[in-house]
Amino acid sequence: MSVSTAAATAADRSVRAPLPVLGRDVTVPLVTGGEVAYAALDYAASAPALQRVWDDVAAYAPYYGSVHRGAGYLSQLSTDLFENARRTVAGFLDCRETDQVVFTRSTTDSLNLLARALPAGCRVFVFETEHHAALLPWRHAGVTCLDAPRTPGQAVETLERALAGREPHGPALVCVTGASNVTGELWPVRELAAAAHAHGARIVLDAAQLAPHHPVSVQDLDVDWVAFSGHKLYAPFGSGVLAGRADWLRAAEPYLAGGGASRRVARRADGGVDVEWHESAARHEAGSPNVIGAHAVASACRALTEAGFDTLVAREQHLIRKVRDGLAEVPEVRVLSLFGDDAPRVGVLSFVVEGWNSSHFAAALSAEYGIGVRDGLFCAHPLVRTLLGSDPRTRGECGAPGAAPGETSLDAVRVSFGAGTPDEHVERFVRAVRELVRDGAKWNYRTQDGRCVPDTPA
Amino acid sequence: MSVSTAAATAADRSVRAPLPVLGRDVTVPLVTGGEVAYAALDYAASAPALQRVWDDVAAYAPYYGSVHRGAGYLSQLSTDLFENARRTVAGFLDCRETDQVVFTRSTTDSLNLLARALPAGCRVFVFETEHHAALLPWRHAGVTCLDAPRTPGQAVETLERALAGREPHGPALVCVTGASNVTGELWPVRELAAAAHAHGARIVLDAAQLAPHHPVSVQDLDVDWVAFSGHKLYAPFGSGVLAGRADWLRAAEPYLAGGGASRRVARRADGGVDVEWHESAARHEAGSPNVIGAHAVASACRALTEAGFDTLVAREQHLIRKVRDGLAEVPEVRVLSLFGDDAPRVGVLSFVVEGWNSSHFAAALSAEYGIGVRDGLFCAHPLVRTLLGSDPRTRGECGAPGAAPGETSLDAVRVSFGAGTPDEHVERFVRAVRELVRDGAKWNYRTQDGRCVPDTPA
Repeated sequence: MSVSTAAATAADRSVRAPLPVLGRDVTVPLVTGGEVAYAALDYAASAPALQRVWDDVAAYAPYYGSVHRGAGYLSQLSTDLFENARRTVAGFLDCRETDQVVFTRSTTDSLNLLARALPAGCRVFVFETEHHAALLPWRHAGVTCLDAPRTPGQAVETLERALAGREPHGPALVCVTGASNVTGELWPVRELAAAAHAHGARIVLDAAQLAPHHPVSVQDLDVDWVAFSGHKLYAPFGSGVLAGRADWLRAAEPYLAGGGASRRVARRADGGVDVEWHESAARHEAGSPNVIGAHAVASACRALTEAGFDTLVAREQHLIRKVRDGLAEVPEVRVLSLFGDDAPRVGVLSFVVEGWNSSHFAAALSAEYGIGVRDGLFCAHPLVRTLLGSDPRTRGECGAPGAAPGETSLDAVRVSFGAGTPDEHVERFVRAVRELVRDGAKWNYRTQDGRCVPDTPA
Repeated sequence: MSVSTAAATAADRSVRAPLPVLGRDVTVPLVTGGEVAYAALDYAASAPALQRVWDDVAAYAPYYGSVHRGAGYLSQLSTDLFENARRTVAGFLDCRETDQVVFTRSTTDSLNLLARALPAGCRVFVFETEHHAALLPWRHAGVTCLDAPRTPGQAVETLERALAGREPHGPALVCVTGASNVTGELWPVRELAAAAHAHGARIVLDAAQLAPHHPVSVQDLDVDWVAFSGHKLYAPFGSGVLAGRADWLRAAEPYLAGGGASRRVARRADGGVDVEWHESAARHEAGSPNVIGAHAVASACRALTEAGFDTLVAREQHLIRKVRDGLAEVPEVRVLSLFGDDAPRVGVLSFVVEGWNSSHFAAALSAEYGIGVRDGLFCAHPLVRTLLGSDPRTRGECGAPGAAPGETSLDAVRVSFGAGTPDEHVERFVRAVRELVRDGAKWNYRTQDGRCVPDTPA
């Protein structure tokens, strides 16, 4: 074998090898008997920890110490680790020199923080297709909710029109997702950022679904802030991130009031209390920080960077093709899409199955195949309703008959995967979909405590 | 040996044995040469993880899955684990049947959540002696800041007087610490709760420093809410708790807006968005929950309950006596106290050393003895200033000469410990204090990047 052939084979093998994740050897019981390796295909909700992240957490845990003003060796080590985690995240996101990196608990928390840091009179522009974390935090601001676009270009036009028509001179913020948590489709972030800036607005990128799958460069995309979650980035230890421009954050009231955010507190002669707040990221991080969570996020950033996004993206696209090709062979399956079949996407796909309630289908995938997916509206109710063409008030009972041909499904099934997913998981998923649609479930299911559970053999 | 003697010896041994914690075998370098086992004596800031908590986290980690609407086996297991954690915490705190347990990130977060859930017109009563997490979150309410009491009885009288003098009929909340993070002294929580209720007010107990050291019964103390932090309860995985009455929480706007907190979201005909929020604890827990953090907190609750607070308290009192007796033999040391020497306390003591800056003293304890304490104002600036009798604007440079006899120290040193602390740590601490005061530090120190670090041999 020539050197170049060996290299190509190695590259091919590396494309095919998932990154080791925790739980890759866990088996679960099947209702039909026996056990099977668990196929975690709900990465879009929460991904398993990378083995590397876990190893880093486990290596650090004995050295855990109180941060900031602790004078002990482990306190200083932990403080350095925490602040280094900030720098690692800044590097991972290719932040500007002057950007702040605030550790939050999740994307939801990050966007709620930014919502509290909006300048007076700020108007927020958000597509109705956003998931709730991006759609709802702006309740104390004026919100312009933009209609669902059906192409990326239409998204840019819709935003431009809305921004051009707004009251002049007021501050404005656009909040946009990088990759949909329902369809996996990529949004035209760079173009939306250019539109926002052309109209004097700022933009925050919700990278919850993007960052685990694609490189995110704040400078290249020219976004003002980025938010993401550790638990979707293979680091499920309670930390998320808001990174970006310091000015609004510095001018805002502290997100949480308490120690760590306050530099000096003194009782006034009139009985009140004067507070001088920090101007660094600590301003919004009151309370003891989640050092282990931040360390885990930084570890994941390093692991993904070292694995190389070129490799990760190639591998994920290979898995996406397998799923899409497999589902395309089952005419009863309709994959949900806003931008059409050719839209670039990450490893997140939602679909409905003719004749099946989604909760029933998802339960059968779990009980009969050991596959963990998600069913429902994925915390993106308006989007899923738009895609389904329905406005369901309630969820289907899992035992009830599903939507017949021509009828509208009440909700959907979502399959999602990433850097830790072996081919076998998506292959099993495709096979399971085919068998369930062709042969029906092997068991009957009923709803119990809000869950769809196996009842009796069919 | 008779049976009863054997039992007594075993009991004695069990009193003397600390609970195994992570990091108990970690050694750190000394500036004077060699290594020594690290003595973590900053438990009041953050305690090491119990080995048992770590083992529980490590055992669960491979089974981690997305919670709530995930249909997979591990998702359902993780959802059950998360909701069971809630029940474990409710049991640990002896909550009322109707109480809610909300997972937050820390005590600071819990009190900020409660501050956002205050009914309109609510007045908050808080002693100026509180740490910032309890003092500052009420910035959007009317706050009555109460003077520092010098006895527990005076605390109750001061509160009663303030409550009696308030505007009638308005809602009111008292926020009180269970054990001071500066002096370790216990506050008369039951009596303060009775006073609050007698005057139609409610009360929240800040149990950040109490819960790791003493049993806390919501029903017995008759408090309306309790807040505590996982990282001080030997579970440093980013979770805290607010537990208590559901009515204010249910009536309040969601703390965070996003998925998980919202039951139904729909676009209105006028372009706006209608949201129906959950009424359970989920209302205030938007975003993917920190399952590992909540699991860790529950594990700590179980471990402390099984170890038995009688045993834990007896052991801690034994350590406190060692520290107090040791410090009492060094006339240059003044232990800070609000309620006097005889006040019951937990394992938290702050002190100043004549002729020493506190940062210098703490740095020498670390570099020359491998002991990790804390120096400063402990995020309780007004209290420490009251106790020091000073109003320092800045921190002492660690290389500068300390306060001479008769002068006022700028800040203090705090030593704190708990269930994982072996006798050797406090014995080494007492010896170190004696030697440093008697012989001086073996090295000279200087300030570098805000830290006090060894410079040259003395």
